[in-house]
Parts: sequence; structure tokens; C-alpha cells
Amino acid sequence: MRAVDVIIKKRDKGTLTREEIEFFIEGFTSGKIPDYQAAAWAMAVLLNGMTDQETTDLTLAMAHSGEMLDLSAAVKIAVDKHSTGGVGDKTTLVVEPLVAACGLPVGKMSGRGLGFSGGTLDKMESIPGFQVNLTREQFMEQLAKEGLVLAGQSADLAPADGKLYALRDVTGTVQSIPLIASSVMSKKIAAGAQAIVLDVKIGNGAFMTSLEEGRRLAQLMVAIGKLSGRTTVALLSDMNQPLGFAVGNALEVKEAIETLQNGGPHDFREHCLVVASHLLRVGGRAADIQTGREIAEKALASGSAWQAFRRLVQIQGGDVSYVDQPEKFPLAPVIETISAPQSGVIRMIHARTVGETSVELGAGRAVKTDSIDHRVGIIVHRKVGETIRAGDALFTVHAASPESLAYARQRLLAAVEISSGPVEELPLFYGVIE
Amino acid sequence: MRAVDVIIKKRDKGTLTREEIEFFIEGFTSGKIPDYQAAAWAMAVLLNGMTDQETTDLTLAMAHSGEMLDLSAAVKIAVDKHSTGGVGDKTTLVVEPLVAACGLPVGKMSGRGLGFSGGTLDKMESIPGFQVNLTREQFMEQLAKEGLVLAGQSADLAPADGKLYALRDVTGTVQSIPLIASSVMSKKIAAGAQAIVLDVKIGNGAFMTSLEEGRRLAQLMVAIGKLSGRTTVALLSDMNQPLGFAVGNALEVKEAIETLQNGGPHDFREHCLVVASHLLRVGGRAADIQTGREIAEKALASGSAWQAFRRLVQIQGGDVSYVDQPEKFPLAPVIETISAPQSGVIRMIHARTVGETSVELGAGRAVKTDSIDHRVGIIVHRKVGETIRAGDALFTVHAASPESLAYARQRLLAAVEISSGPVEELPLFYGVIE
Repeated sequence: MRAVDVIIKKRDKGTLTREEIEFFIEGFTSGKIPDYQAAAWAMAVLLNGMTDQETTDLTLAMAHSGEMLDLSAAVKIAVDKHSTGGVGDKTTLVVEPLVAACGLPVGKMSGRGLGFSGGTLDKMESIPGFQVNLTREQFMEQLAKEGLVLAGQSADLAPADGKLYALRDVTGTVQSIPLIASSVMSKKIAAGAQAIVLDVKIGNGAFMTSLEEGRRLAQLMVAIGKLSGRTTVALLSDMNQPLGFAVGNALEVKEAIETLQNGGPHDFREHCLVVASHLLRVGGRAADIQTGREIAEKALASGSAWQAFRRLVQIQGGDVSYVDQPEKFPLAPVIETISAPQSGVIRMIHARTVGETSVELGAGRAVKTDSIDHRVGIIVHRKVGETIRAGDALFTVHAASPESLAYARQRLLAAVEISSGPVEELPLFYGVIE
Repeated sequence: MRAVDVIIKKRDKGTLTREEIEFFIEGFTSGKIPDYQAAAWAMAVLLNGMTDQETTDLTLAMAHSGEMLDLSAAVKIAVDKHSTGGVGDKTTLVVEPLVAACGLPVGKMSGRGLGFSGGTLDKMESIPGFQVNLTREQFMEQLAKEGLVLAGQSADLAPADGKLYALRDVTGTVQSIPLIASSVMSKKIAAGAQAIVLDVKIGNGAFMTSLEEGRRLAQLMVAIGKLSGRTTVALLSDMNQPLGFAVGNALEVKEAIETLQNGGPHDFREHCLVVASHLLRVGGRAADIQTGREIAEKALASGSAWQAFRRLVQIQGGDVSYVDQPEKFPLAPVIETISAPQSGVIRMIHARTVGETSVELGAGRAVKTDSIDHRVGIIVHRKVGETIRAGDALFTVHAASPESLAYARQRLLAAVEISSGPVEELPLFYGVIE
């Protein structure tokens, strides 16, 4: 078999066999197939597409390019959740301890933020001492004993995906539904997941900006799950405005704590309950979503979800006094509220702009090597559809300097649209695919 | 400007500006833009196409990536001809001295054979002593003084094209009409051509196998010529059977000599006269094609074309006794005739198979580093449409060994189809585009 023939087959809209895909991915991972051949192939895939079976074969080939974790020694069913990334998306911080409190153990390997979207590990590292770098043995032991782990990737999972993603990033081949789907699913499968709940975000603050696109991605990931024998459910959720109020690492941790203590913003709490109820169902802890929701609501109300989070911080070395007294989190030196310049109804709070502004404030990374200021960020006080009066608080900016505050003010004011007529609220979800 | 944005624009079917194309080609030539980005870009170009203007901008950017020759010190109008490559295509060996004998000076930089198609330099090197490596000064001096040069590339012409072609070869991006057209035209323009006659071969023994494809390529190259201020004419010629009788280096030189001496196979002579008449017209030596043909016929009949060839051999160091007495060319050790297994009418002599068989005999190169046996090759005795009887000679094979002879016999018999019904002759030309 020759790499160039595999490229030509896809260029000519052919359907690749499993053998061809495995040959290509193995060759690429080992370096036998050079980057320039993989780049031409990726462009041909982007422009000519792949069938569900091809995408599944690609997913499994990438999953098998490195270590395959087996969590069966620690849990009955290994469940995982994955968000395609958004602004203010601190869902994992709540949902993980929440389902663990409901008796569903979950060991999660999370990522860091890049671009306008935040990362779970960065958020958790706002808590002094919290350790995300666990060895595989530590991960397995904690999962078996405590039923709850939140760590970075402890093994060389799906290295083909890492290598291909880096190449796609510089060759204009990121925006391919089959390549995105196989990238997500290969990591989940390599990490040992048997049941997966996908949170596919749709809107200007997500990587999928249209519902149609998001639905195709969700359907494809669910199809991959089916074809590879993993129970998979995908939720289509809105990301046209930030989720909850807080955007920025320590600010989001505080909001997660409020939510775990049975408070928090309405939209975020609701989002977490829906994700948790699906996780409880695919994990076999609830017969249906309604039952899942009921036990999750109870875990929030009883404090058991909050206790599970507190325990997670403790066992991974975090200073629990910070989560007990969130006022201990250091504040940014410059904090200022931005008020509404006019009365009316909020028509838009452009999520992507809010996310980018937060990154500019220092909460995220433009490039991988950037360091993060955990203190900075934005509180978004309003939601689309709310009626406001001129002078009402729209945002509170937590900035490292007056200069970055000034920049943030100008960008955030441009991110808001206030209209005179009535505006409908944005939905939280657009549907479920399973 | 970022390379990835240029890739994305073409991926999304955008039209690249001249600045974007120049940025990309300059970056690629200098190595600032890596191969993997160029590969993704080439695949996007192949699948999404380019406008005539984009292709012209690409052609000129590649032409200007290295030295630009200026032949105006040596000739009034620099003319050039280019064949897209075929089997038995020794046209340059005849047409160059022919038009020079008609008073149109021509300095040609030719290539070597690769794949099933032969190369002019390899053919000329059958003549002992013939020197194809001239310095630029030698080239210019000979062109000015003698009006006739046939050499290899003496300068670093269109290095971007060389680099891009090598990459296309291994990334499945050769078969793109805009990339093929710009590759051909960039080298011609860099070599100083002001008027160009293109011989676009169409058929199973050519790189363009369908008339439609060949016509598109021809139209695009003529459009590039116009947009870049070069008079350009494209002939669409048949390559479903070999041109003339001889395939293989010394065999083709002998056939060229016969043709220059006013003999030679009918189809090949006719082909040369048509190409020459167009060259004489675009070079300003004839007011129209008919006049061009008349003076070319005279140059063949009078012996002046033959004398020009003889002179060319002499001034480039070739042993003229070989061309004076072609029986001096060393013969291959094994020569055998293959006879028709049945009577009937020739329906097909598959040009590509004949070309590949000739390469297998040692007349060409499978890879660039292969060496060539100038003695070996094939004489094709028949043309499509001829009536034959069982036992008539179909081919004479000139082989280096009995083993390669046996291989050739089997392949050549499979290349011929003999039918009972009447079969029309193949046309020589399908049209002219200008």
C-alpha cells in the first residue's frame, strides 16, 4: 500500500477501507508517512467527506495509536462527558461531583483552555495546591477508592490525534466534521469510556456556529459511538451567550461552588442537571432521565454533591479552606462594573467576544505557552431577553491593570445589543441525539 | 498575511489575489512556508479549481521565483514549443532544425524522460559526444551565432515549480489542470519565450486521457499566455497510438533523421509540418499557417532542414558520422519481430502500454536515478485502421536480453487489438486553440 494512493482515493471521492485508514494513521503516527502527505489527505477529507464507517475506523485507528485505558478494575461502567467547548462552561466542576454523589463513579481526564474557550484544568488550578498531574496508578487507585477523579491526561492517549490536530491547526483543516468527531471520540475511547454524554455547543461562542453543523457533528459522534460499541448521547446546547454569569478561572470556581450548594445561576444549574441526568442514565444509576434528574436534584439539595466536590479538592491536594470560604480567592487589582448605556431589552451578549475578552484579560491562552492569571475575568449580569434600565450593571470586569480594563470595557460594550422591542430568551438546549 | 488563511480561502472556494499567490509561492520557495501547508493548499486547488487570472498569477509567481532569461540579445522573437509528452514523440528533433532552416532561430531547453514518456535530451544523447549541458553563456552565444540550440536547463528556472512538482508527485495533486498549466507555462516564460506553440497530447499514451480534459488544459494555457502577454497556440493531437514507428532513444533519432531527409513515417512527418508551420507563424517567419507549411516542406525537400540538424550535432560536440551513417548506432543484442496472430484490421495499439514496455526494456526511467540503454526500444510497424494478415510483422523489439524480450512480447501482444470489421484511422489532430 502507498500513502499517495490512499490520498488519491479520497481525492477522487472514494470510500477508504479500514485497512487503508489503519495503514495511513499508523504510518503517520510512526513518522513513516510525512506531514505533507497527511496534510493533503486531511484537505481531501475536509472537502470530500467521510462515511460514518470511515469516521469510525479513523476514530478507532487513532484511539489505538497509543495506550488504551481499561477502567474495569475500578468501575462497573466507565462513563465520561465531553463538552465541545464554550464560554463560561464550568459544567464539569459541578456535574462530576454531582453524579459521584449519586453513586456513579467517574474518573475524568480533562484539558486546558485554548482560544476563546476555557479549560477545566485551568479552572481547578485556581484552588491553591490542587494537583491535576496524577500518575496512572494514582488515577486508578483514586477512582476505585473515592469514585471521583479530575486530572490531566496521565497516559499517551491517542497520540495520532494529537499529532494530526497540530497539523490540521496550521493547514486549514480543523473545520471538518468527520475530523472533529473522530478527534473527540478517539480520546474518549482511548481513555476507556464505555458510555459517553456529549455536550455539543452551538452558537457564536462555540466551535460549531450553526445548528445544522452542530447537529451533524452530534449525529456523527453518536454514530461512531454505536459503531464502536459505546453508548453515546449528544445534547445540543446553546452557546450564543455565556453559560451562567462567570467567565474566568477563579470566578467560575466560585460560581460552581454556589451551584453545588444548591444555588447558582438558573441557566447553569439547569444545564448541569440535564447533563447529570443523562450521565446517570447511561451509567446505569437511573432507569430514565426523569429519575436521574430527581436524584441529582436531591444530591444538590442535601449537600452531598457539595461534599463530593469538597472531598475531590481534598484528595487531590487542594486547600479546602478556599472552597469553604471563597472570599479567600485573591481578587484582581482592578474591578469595575460596566453599566447599560440605555434602557431596553437585551438582544445579544456575544459569547465569543466575551470569551476573547476574558482571554485578553489574562484568563486564557492565545498560544499554548501563555501563562494564566486565575483572578481575572468577567461577570455577566444579564441574559438575553431581560429588560434593563440605563445604568443597570451589565458586566463586572476583573482586570490585572487599568489598561486591560479599558480594553475590556470597549469590547464588552460592543458585545451587547439592547433593543426596544421584546426579545425571546435563548433556549438552553436544541435537542438530544442518541 | 498567514499561509493558513490563504489555504482556508481556497478551501472555501475563494478567489486568491495576486498578492496572496505571490506571498504563498515566495514563502514556499524560500522554505518559510513548509511542505505540509503547500500540500494542503495544492489539494484545495485541485478540488476547488482556480480562475484563469489566479492560474496566470500562479504561473508568473513561479516564473519569477528564479532567474528570468532574456533572449532578446540573441533573437528577435524568442519562440518555444512544448509537448505535454507522449510515446514516440521525437517532434523536437525534427521541428527545431526545420524551423531554424526556415530562418527562425530557436534555442530550446528540453527535459528528460520520466514514466512512460520519453525525453528529448535522452534521445539526443544517443549520439556519441552530443553535449546537452551548456552554460548560459554558451547557450546565448550559440543561439546568436547559429540560431539553433538544444540543451538542458542551464539556469535555475522557476525553482518554485520544481519544488511544487516534487511535492505534488507524492501528495496526489498532479492531476490538476490549473497546476499542470501553470507548471508548463512558468518554465516557458522563465526561459524567455515570447511566442509558444503547445502540443497537447490526448489519449491513453498521454497525461491527458480525454479530449475534454485536454481541451480544458489547452484553453487554460492559451489564456495564461494571453493574460501574461505571450502569443500562445495550442494544438490538440492524438496520443492513442505511438507517433511514428520508433519508440526508444537511438531508434527515434534514426527515424528523425529519415524524416529530416524528407522521408519518415507519414503521420510523424505530417505532425512535424503542422507544428513547424505554427511556429513559423507565431515567430513571424510566415504570414499564415499555409505559408509556414510551404516553406517547411521546401526545407525538408531541399535538405536544408537535414543540414541544420547535422550542424546542431556538430556544434554541440556530437559525432556527426553517426547521423551521416545511422547504421553506426550500436544495436541491441536481441532483436526480434512479433507477428500478427490473426488477420483483420488493427483496432488499437495501446500507446501507454508500448511506452511502458519501452521503459521496461531500458529505454526510459521508472525513477529519476535510473540509467538509460539508448539501444533498446520498439518499432511499431502498423497504424490503427490498417488491414493485416496473420504473420505480418506488428512490432520489432530491440532488447538487452532474451528475458526482457519475452516480457515485451507478452505485453505488446496484449497492447494490440485486431478486429474483423472496418476501423477508422485515428486523427492526427483534434483542433487548434488560440
